[in-house]
Amino acid sequence: MSLDALFRPHSVAIIGASDRKLTIGNRIFQNLLDFGFKGKVFPVNPKGGMIGETKVFESITAVPEHVDLVHIVIKNTFVPAAVDECGKKGVKALIINTAGFKEVGGDGIELEKKIVEAARRYGMRIFGPNCQGIMNSDPSVSVYANFTFTRMSPGSISIIAQSGGVAEVVNQRLAELGHGFRMYASPGNACDISIPELLEYLGNDPGTKVIILHIESLAEPRRLMEIASRIVPHKPILGMKTGRTSEGARAVSSHTGGLVKQDTTTEVVFKKCGIVSFSDEDLLCQTAIALSMQPAPAGSRVGIITNTGGPGIISTDECIEAGLSLPDLAPQTKEFLKKSLPPEATIANPVDVLATAGPKEYGAAVGALLQDPGIDSVLINFITPFFVDCAGVAREFEKLSKSAQKPLVGIVMTDKKNWAETLQIVKGAGIPAYEFPEMGARVLAAMTRYGLMKKRGTGAPPTEPSRDREGAAHASHDGHIHKDEATAVIKAAQAARREFLSAKEAAALLSAYHIPAARVATADSPEQCADAARMVGYPVVLKVDSEKVVHKTEMGGVVVGLKDEAALLAAAKELHAKFSAVPHGFIVQEQLTTGHEMLIGAQSVANLGHLIAFGLGGIFVEVMRDVAFGITPLSKVEVEEMMNSIKGRKILEGARGQKGVDRARLADIVLRLAQLVTDFPAITEVDFNPVFAAPEGKPTKVADARIRLSQQA
Amino acid sequence: MSLDALFRPHSVAIIGASDRKLTIGNRIFQNLLDFGFKGKVFPVNPKGGMIGETKVFESITAVPEHVDLVHIVIKNTFVPAAVDECGKKGVKALIINTAGFKEVGGDGIELEKKIVEAARRYGMRIFGPNCQGIMNSDPSVSVYANFTFTRMSPGSISIIAQSGGVAEVVNQRLAELGHGFRMYASPGNACDISIPELLEYLGNDPGTKVIILHIESLAEPRRLMEIASRIVPHKPILGMKTGRTSEGARAVSSHTGGLVKQDTTTEVVFKKCGIVSFSDEDLLCQTAIALSMQPAPAGSRVGIITNTGGPGIISTDECIEAGLSLPDLAPQTKEFLKKSLPPEATIANPVDVLATAGPKEYGAAVGALLQDPGIDSVLINFITPFFVDCAGVAREFEKLSKSAQKPLVGIVMTDKKNWAETLQIVKGAGIPAYEFPEMGARVLAAMTRYGLMKKRGTGAPPTEPSRDREGAAHASHDGHIHKDEATAVIKAAQAARREFLSAKEAAALLSAYHIPAARVATADSPEQCADAARMVGYPVVLKVDSEKVVHKTEMGGVVVGLKDEAALLAAAKELHAKFSAVPHGFIVQEQLTTGHEMLIGAQSVANLGHLIAFGLGGIFVEVMRDVAFGITPLSKVEVEEMMNSIKGRKILEGARGQKGVDRARLADIVLRLAQLVTDFPAITEVDFNPVFAAPEGKPTKVADARIRLSQQA
Repeated sequence: MSLDALFRPHSVAIIGASDRKLTIGNRIFQNLLDFGFKGKVFPVNPKGGMIGETKVFESITAVPEHVDLVHIVIKNTFVPAAVDECGKKGVKALIINTAGFKEVGGDGIELEKKIVEAARRYGMRIFGPNCQGIMNSDPSVSVYANFTFTRMSPGSISIIAQSGGVAEVVNQRLAELGHGFRMYASPGNACDISIPELLEYLGNDPGTKVIILHIESLAEPRRLMEIASRIVPHKPILGMKTGRTSEGARAVSSHTGGLVKQDTTTEVVFKKCGIVSFSDEDLLCQTAIALSMQPAPAGSRVGIITNTGGPGIISTDECIEAGLSLPDLAPQTKEFLKKSLPPEATIANPVDVLATAGPKEYGAAVGALLQDPGIDSVLINFITPFFVDCAGVAREFEKLSKSAQKPLVGIVMTDKKNWAETLQIVKGAGIPAYEFPEMGARVLAAMTRYGLMKKRGTGAPPTEPSRDREGAAHASHDGHIHKDEATAVIKAAQAARREFLSAKEAAALLSAYHIPAARVATADSPEQCADAARMVGYPVVLKVDSEKVVHKTEMGGVVVGLKDEAALLAAAKELHAKFSAVPHGFIVQEQLTTGHEMLIGAQSVANLGHLIAFGLGGIFVEVMRDVAFGITPLSKVEVEEMMNSIKGRKILEGARGQKGVDRARLADIVLRLAQLVTDFPAITEVDFNPVFAAPEGKPTKVADARIRLSQQA
Repeated sequence: MSLDALFRPHSVAIIGASDRKLTIGNRIFQNLLDFGFKGKVFPVNPKGGMIGETKVFESITAVPEHVDLVHIVIKNTFVPAAVDECGKKGVKALIINTAGFKEVGGDGIELEKKIVEAARRYGMRIFGPNCQGIMNSDPSVSVYANFTFTRMSPGSISIIAQSGGVAEVVNQRLAELGHGFRMYASPGNACDISIPELLEYLGNDPGTKVIILHIESLAEPRRLMEIASRIVPHKPILGMKTGRTSEGARAVSSHTGGLVKQDTTTEVVFKKCGIVSFSDEDLLCQTAIALSMQPAPAGSRVGIITNTGGPGIISTDECIEAGLSLPDLAPQTKEFLKKSLPPEATIANPVDVLATAGPKEYGAAVGALLQDPGIDSVLINFITPFFVDCAGVAREFEKLSKSAQKPLVGIVMTDKKNWAETLQIVKGAGIPAYEFPEMGARVLAAMTRYGLMKKRGTGAPPTEPSRDREGAAHASHDGHIHKDEATAVIKAAQAARREFLSAKEAAALLSAYHIPAARVATADSPEQCADAARMVGYPVVLKVDSEKVVHKTEMGGVVVGLKDEAALLAAAKELHAKFSAVPHGFIVQEQLTTGHEMLIGAQSVANLGHLIAFGLGGIFVEVMRDVAFGITPLSKVEVEEMMNSIKGRKILEGARGQKGVDRARLADIVLRLAQLVTDFPAITEVDFNPVFAAPEGKPTKVADARIRLSQQA
């Protein structure tokens, strides 16, 4: 069902409308009138009477016409009865501003359940409760169904924000920068109409060119991801997650009553579906404005022009630090600039056109960079010298901007009063203009992040004909996948109510998915260990095997580097004595020695799937936290992106004269793990730690696998 | 000599004054008049005549009165003659706006030398050339000796900027935020009056409360550091270095003609002398304003108050990410807040006073945090609800601010038109107010960085009685320093014109400074290696020793892990054969096996001293670039700060169940190295790589020392 009843209502009623100034019930009524709502407004209050010149109805059922949308602004315990009445009246959508629901816990949770059930019964939709409301500035609707105070003027940027405060701050900033907005929604508890649903509606709204999305806690990450993935190729979504630090997350939790796991999930979700992520509201607003006026850059190669040294250098620093590149100019560009600029000008990237540059020089430089095939975007620094025809320079920008196929971003450093005309021409031409080189460069970098997201093809995940031993088809990767064998292992462990798979079970699971692992065998007695070792081959690692001993290393249950039978037997006898108090056996495992220690893991996240982790092992994980994450299902491109995004990636390529690792093999292990956990949602955690990653031609193997199950199928 | 003639002139002449609009010679004349210069202005131009109502003199000598300060705005080749005339006239200071000197290379360099020599002869000072000029807004002077266009209004922030463009951008921002400035200086080539000298002048200016310093390339880092160190305890210096990336540094180089080594020197210089470093002009301006109005926080513990969830969370995230902490509130604070706020309020840090909070609630919360002994600064989020007496809230802030001993920073989120009174009260009270929680938190964090710098005592470097073997005094550290022995080693190597010390020499140098190193002995033949090994003890490392083989490892000239004489002899014979083409001997060295690999190094920097590097060795240095730097002389506190600032510091403390290292021993090695290179400036580079850092009680030793000399004493 479309959300038109919410965003394009023909009539709005306010249950709890009031003639007392400074009340929410009065403010909403007033806002609807003040901002020129094109439909009808019906105040409702059991006291009746008038608000100004408008008659107040004693109940919603007393309203003589059909009502699309109803605001409910009464005490929380009275809300269910009002919802019921609205249902009977045939109302299509409700905005429940009232607080005191899920966010307060206890009775509030029950109250919220009750109103959701009632609304479902009547086929009504609820926005809120505990929310501000919505706005739609479309002149044919002009609905300000919200109790806040910021002016509404039409624009092409729409805002969805979980926090009303953030929505307000963003809205104020857009207004101050002379830009309006299109639609605005701050859904509070979002008990029915959800953020993904709002996103979908705005994605389909032709008047919305850019969507700003603020998130405090992700309720339906998978759905958000699916919807956002469809929008991003034709419309940017600029996202911000707050509560990134554990202190911030605690504040979110006390604020929304939601459970927040302070982790990287949101960032990974944003990345997977192409939402451009921000941690700064101002940069977010400025980027939204820029993308509402200019095309997204097709690549990260920026050309910079400046008439002032210092700010030109700052733009350069900022572009580079934000991941853009400043390529050399093409020979024909240089040739042309040499002819067009004075000899003291710097014909390089950045181009220094000198403080004396007027319309002719700026026109030549901007035009040349727009034509240079090696440049994806042009960043213009322009400080306004008193001896230059600055308005003429601005008109040159305007002219070139009209036919430009690449984005132009301006940094206009000036006294806004004395150079008002110049600024006006630049802005009128749809060229975003910033007063600081830092902001100009950061906005361009953010626009580029969208440009790259937009055209980034991650490809589909290997679509997986996983077959049982009887099936003849090959799996998506080389090496068959035998799902039936894996199913048997997991069912058996679940039947035995075991949380962690045994070493033998883990080995069987890895084998079924052709994930290469250290050879392993089990033994019941020290004597059997020798047989086991003959199977796996020396040197070996010996581990005690007992359900009672989960942290084997810490308990002294692991002996490494056993080179021969004598050493093995001695070690096995010692462990046998040490753990005599608990039932135990032994694990004898091939000792891996060559290769870099890596970590590959998986963790299930509610309503999402599994997070897949990839990083350098040992100290790099524990001290440097150098881990990249992805979300199942994973494509090969995504796995490559993960591998490229760790700080220690040079080690994979071979640093300090050492050989690089077999990246293809590592990527294959990551993909097979992603497939495994996708096939078996009951696997809640996997830790391959360490994986020994060897150079090409040598075996890369999982040395230790810890696999955790839930009891649900 | 004071710079009063420059900043507080009684009379200013302009050589090259012009009546043609849009020329620099006209603009400077006009600016002096427009901005109300309190002294006399004398235009000078060989053409004579009038500019407006002012008589133009045909030469500076024709001016009938004494002239303090002269602008020179004529063609570069005419400048020397003008300088000479000014000298004869008895002028005290010159501002040479004209370009075409050192920055263009070649003849320009000669021209610049010439004018400096001439000025010295006459006892005149030069500001510039290739510069904008200066301003002093002190109402008793009001001198706008500059050709730029931004308004001048009195304030307490002074600006020194190498880049005129950056100076302008900063100045415009201060003006736009409703703040003036005190003094302004953009010295261009700074051929005579230098940035450190300007800094010193502003440090002594009672009207300057905060100094903004922009640097592109550091000409006199040691002097800057000495002067800044004296200013920082009583006045903040906020610094910004541009050209941080290699692309940016290239742009600096093409811009100023200076040689820029793209490195971390400036950051380390800033840190050593307490200059608070910025990479963002806006944050720099906002922090300058805040510090001109509020005291610096005494510590990093912030208390946050909010009436809106989302922005409160953002403030929290930003404070934590900027290194501040949000401690628990004191019991008495909580007790008081429980009594003063509604039950739904959050009594924690951040304090959520709820959207309904009025003057009483805000007053209680701000007052309580100001009194809490565990809180160093208070950050107030205030979104202005229409149903609250917002002006009353602001007046409460005003009242509390008057007696506050701690800084108050405000984030006032509002519609500036409708809540103008509220904003006015807050700003009038000297409380800086930001529209974004991000900026408010970042400013407070930057203020805190200054607060910590201000009171940070690094202590003196160990003051060094280094003595020769005959002297009885102990060195500053345990273990005597024998400077005479070191002198002999270095003189011998210099006499032999050797760039790198031999292994034996390096060992002797370390021994003289009691820097523990792996035992080492040299041998001339494979057979002698066995004797050498008996001295150092097995296992040993064998290295070829030849001036022709600088990169021993890469050339295959190193064999490690030799456990006995047989292995050693075999290896020595093999190396002997391999390097038969060059004269060579052998180095036999104790093989170190326990401990973490560290890197400790030194590098001389012109006009500064030595940079000392400390980091985790191997992959951490080469891949993660995890190195901390300091500048000689180093104090113990500074070495501790270096050790604490590396990302992998947890490894020093003992990560992954391993023991930590002997930090005191490592610190001692760093201090001894700092002493060594300070005693011998001829040492240009030292690389202790690796140092094996062992736990306390075990020996920590330098495994390999590479020491490079210059030929100068």
